[in-house]
Amino acid sequence: MPNYSPSIQDLINQFSALPGLGPKTAQRLVFYLLKQPKENLEKFGLGLQHLKDKIVICRQCHNFSESDPCLICGDKRRNPRVVCVVAKPQDMIALEKINDYQGLYHILGGAIDPLEGITPAELKIKELTERVQKDGVLEIILALSSDLPGETTILYLTKLLKPLKIKITRLAQGLPIGSDLEYADEVTLSSALKGRREL
Amino acid sequence: MPNYSPSIQDLINQFSALPGLGPKTAQRLVFYLLKQPKENLEKFGLGLQHLKDKIVICRQCHNFSESDPCLICGDKRRNPRVVCVVAKPQDMIALEKINDYQGLYHILGGAIDPLEGITPAELKIKELTERVQKDGVLEIILALSSDLPGETTILYLTKLLKPLKIKITRLAQGLPIGSDLEYADEVTLSSALKGRREL
Repeated sequence: MPNYSPSIQDLINQFSALPGLGPKTAQRLVFYLLKQPKENLEKFGLGLQHLKDKIVICRQCHNFSESDPCLICGDKRRNPRVVCVVAKPQDMIALEKINDYQGLYHILGGAIDPLEGITPAELKIKELTERVQKDGVLEIILALSSDLPGETTILYLTKLLKPLKIKITRLAQGLPIGSDLEYADEVTLSSALKGRREL
Repeated sequence: MPNYSPSIQDLINQFSALPGLGPKTAQRLVFYLLKQPKENLEKFGLGLQHLKDKIVICRQCHNFSESDPCLICGDKRRNPRVVCVVAKPQDMIALEKINDYQGLYHILGGAIDPLEGITPAELKIKELTERVQKDGVLEIILALSSDLPGETTILYLTKLLKPLKIKITRLAQGLPIGSDLEYADEVTLSSALKGRREL
């Protein structure tokens, strides 16, 4: 039974190895790419090949960066005594987009999830406690997702950091902006009620 | 506002330019790739760069191939007098997978869709009529999708090919295997009834 040409099939295999892309999507992408000019493919290919060449991991916040310390940790205008703990670099970027936070970050590299085999030892938690003590951190903001791994990590870190006598906060939970109260789930609504604030 | 490192951002842009991939998916893929060994990235990158190097278009069936004529058109055991007309190479592969068809193919490069600006002139239709006359084709099987562009193309080609006095067929329409009659839509059910065959 004939199949796609080897160079097409190879690239389909490469794309379908990516998380969330099945063989049908991979096929569609490769046939799209076949119609693109050769220069675009060269650029894309080179970008992939050299992705990791310039990337280092910032020793302070553990973010991917082209410098160590990274641009954020190296920014003298930011407050090094407030540290926002996030699971992954994408979460940090989401927080940076609100253009309001002036402290630094600490990227754990995931959240505690025993079912997926992610234990505290795999995360940058030891580095966090060391950093808190070494840099005289005053506030830790736990900016983790409101799911089971996120909540587990929040519980674990709160217990671990409490003895260090620093301020530990977590992001507010409540109704998302623009949402309809009628359609909010009970847990969200209950959190929003508990977290109500005086006007 | 700091953003991702340039080499990460560049690759995110490359991925989000692909059809059906948004910036969030592109982010997820690039962060996945950052955790892969460098050899894998090299291989993926080279595959992309050289995708088009070996690929030619078969002059007979217009499929992407590494040889001209392609492996199918060049296969002497196949019957060159039966030609199956499909919209795109993926459709041809789907038909090849049933391992039952012994004729050749003709890839139109799409289906007539005026709303998307695809007119008969953009498709390999002239090439099809020339091929029918030159190679003494006896049967044309129109294997096009059962959607509006597919049906439009079938109508157009039937009208165009009728005067050539050859057999023109289309794929059967009816209940998909394993489906429940109760949940079939009316149009499918009506086609299945019209196309009923004696046992």
